[in-house]
Amino acid sequence: MKAWEGTFTMPLKGRSQKPRVEGFTMVIDKGLGLRATKDLLEMAAEWIDDIKLTFGTSAFYSEEILKRKIDLIRNAGVEVMPGGTFLEVAIWQGVYDGFLRRAKDLGFTMIEVSDGTIQMDAQTRARAIGKALDAGFRVISEVGKKDPAEKVPLAQLHEQIAADLANGAFKVIVEAREAGKGVGIYDEEGRIKEEEVEAIVSGVADPNCLLWEAPLKSQQQQLILRFGPNVNLGNIPPEDVLALEALRQGLRGDTLKQAYWESQR
Amino acid sequence: MKAWEGTFTMPLKGRSQKPRVEGFTMVIDKGLGLRATKDLLEMAAEWIDDIKLTFGTSAFYSEEILKRKIDLIRNAGVEVMPGGTFLEVAIWQGVYDGFLRRAKDLGFTMIEVSDGTIQMDAQTRARAIGKALDAGFRVISEVGKKDPAEKVPLAQLHEQIAADLANGAFKVIVEAREAGKGVGIYDEEGRIKEEEVEAIVSGVADPNCLLWEAPLKSQQQQLILRFGPNVNLGNIPPEDVLALEALRQGLRGDTLKQAYWESQR
Amino acid sequence: MKAWEGTFTMPLKGRSQKPRVEGFTMVIDKGLGLRATKDLLEMAAEWIDDIKLTFGTSAFYSEEILKRKIDLIRNAGVEVMPGGTFLEVAIWQGVYDGFLRRAKDLGFTMIEVSDGTIQMDAQTRARAIGKALDAGFRVISEVGKKDPAEKVPLAQLHEQIAADLANGAFKVIVEAREAGKGVGIYDEEGRIKEEEVEAIVSGVADPNCLLWEAPLKSQQQQLILRFGPNVNLGNIPPEDVLALEALRQGLRGDTLKQAYWESQR
Repeated sequence: MKAWEGTFTMPLKGRSQKPRVEGFTMVIDKGLGLRATKDLLEMAAEWIDDIKLTFGTSAFYSEEILKRKIDLIRNAGVEVMPGGTFLEVAIWQGVYDGFLRRAKDLGFTMIEVSDGTIQMDAQTRARAIGKALDAGFRVISEVGKKDPAEKVPLAQLHEQIAADLANGAFKVIVEAREAGKGVGIYDEEGRIKEEEVEAIVSGVADPNCLLWEAPLKSQQQQLILRFGPNVNLGNIPPEDVLALEALRQGLRGDTLKQAYWESQR
Repeated sequence: MKAWEGTFTMPLKGRSQKPRVEGFTMVIDKGLGLRATKDLLEMAAEWIDDIKLTFGTSAFYSEEILKRKIDLIRNAGVEVMPGGTFLEVAIWQGVYDGFLRRAKDLGFTMIEVSDGTIQMDAQTRARAIGKALDAGFRVISEVGKKDPAEKVPLAQLHEQIAADLANGAFKVIVEAREAGKGVGIYDEEGRIKEEEVEAIVSGVADPNCLLWEAPLKSQQQQLILRFGPNVNLGNIPPEDVLALEALRQGLRGDTLKQAYWESQR
Repeated sequence: MKAWEGTFTMPLKGRSQKPRVEGFTMVIDKGLGLRATKDLLEMAAEWIDDIKLTFGTSAFYSEEILKRKIDLIRNAGVEVMPGGTFLEVAIWQGVYDGFLRRAKDLGFTMIEVSDGTIQMDAQTRARAIGKALDAGFRVISEVGKKDPAEKVPLAQLHEQIAADLANGAFKVIVEAREAGKGVGIYDEEGRIKEEEVEAIVSGVADPNCLLWEAPLKSQQQQLILRFGPNVNLGNIPPEDVLALEALRQGLRGDTLKQAYWESQR
């Protein structure tokens, strides 16, 4: 039971409940210990849909700690996946089948298929998604390059998104890295380039199939104001999950303001 | 007993002890779990006067976790309050009495009365302070708007501060948000606008009645150099409490330097 | 046993193992509680060589907590030292012998000898190193001033490094503070000034004797690309230790990219 239940109503209404098909929150985890993981889940499991053990960080865990951490996450009703970069290494090294088997043994429930760093043709990408699905994983794919010098043309981005969804990815992440600056839809200062957002959205059948990496508060705020409280957001730092929820539901100045002024008109 | 007692003296002297009337440190908490809360209190309860469960984050706790967390904080001799934004929602929605009753039941000891986002006339503000005092809370108020476009004129700021104190607020917070950039006394880069600080101070009877939100180290440093080790500071990230204490008492380069060079003259 | 063992090979090879003579990772600790310390060590002790209780933060611990924390760190096979600023206060106040005795009693294993804030002549510096060695500590020294206005001339820097090593320091830290901006080899934005790095390196017999404070990811990345996976790095935030390891071993985009493209040529 929520602590303040019955004393007020959320200024922004319609927030989705678990299991969510929209309003997904994906947390970026750079190596939380077991106690911090318990803390996070106790406080906020209801508001977290997926935890990504980002980059190749999970390669540096002991087997025991990794299994215990994944168990904690699953038992709290949250999905868990290794970082896309790790998968890219596995594909590049030709050990993808072993990677999937090991991920399954360890308890991961979801796989991110990306090509943020390596080159991957459409066939390899489709096969990577298919194999992960066959192995019993939920699959999320990612479009966009980590290096701004390698920008993907818009038409190709739209093709990739459509193909990934057709191949069985349940959502497609729009890349923004851990920092959210100078990459994808963000400029060097982390400000959203609105025209880039609109260009991406213009070519997809349903914006709910997109999950925006948005590590910074200003980014989360703008995307919520644009797409509503149930926009899919990723790369949320663990310590910001409740702050994001306050943004989504209008209990933080930046989004409360809009709801408030609309009520005053 | 302090671990290093007797081996050296603090370069900046006169730091106040608990219960403090000046030199107040208010921590901003975006959702620390119970283990992290225990860690924070074990390490630093002596140096923390108040923990703010910021924005409306406490609306997303389960009742059990929230009560246990508040108990931990109170048992360590630290005050605890919900964020001002949450109170603004309650006042806007006309459920302030229920909000205060519920805050009391949950164990909160302090209430922040602000109008950072909503509009509030002087009478409503006075009544909000009065009701919280009547309900047995310590009250801290806040001046300043979250949106820089809505800047409060200086004369009005001075009036508000005087009225709040006359109405029973024990201190008045100067707004700077979580980020401390482009708001109130800080420019877009988070640098202090000294003339703004002096303008605010010029109109108050006692600068000790002000508590400056100062999330960034450079801000804390400048305010300590201006007002001394016992300046009241708020929105201190939990992980920075001991670093702030080192600044206050001259065990960090930025404030040690001044004490050192004065001794060399 | 590593969780993913046998399923892939690290893109950047040759990472050193403990006890390291190169590839040292020094963590900056601003006051982690006991639970967070356990978390950090469980997750990453293999990748941490030294934890610095930075500035004078250890002056604010209770004796019991400080001893328990130091025990945890030592039992995990990690060195632990107080911050250099604290030593500078002790030397300035003429209580260095007592400081060393107390540090020994508390369980510290390493001492950082710096003059980032106070003035110290070469003889005092040599004696400070010698006394710490005599007391049974491993000694690391630091060159560079915290205040950019006091920049040390290059020739003097080279002399200091050579003298410290001759006097028994096992490595010499290049100062960059907690923030890594506008100090030493970093510009106001935290970007590496390559010519400064090369100038420093040009005057030392072995670059492995240097440990670069590099709190930001972009700095770690550039230093790894310049000096390889076993460059000595310091002031690593606790939450970034596994992310740094991913950088060192090529499991993060920024360094994976180089290994990948070299393989494609």
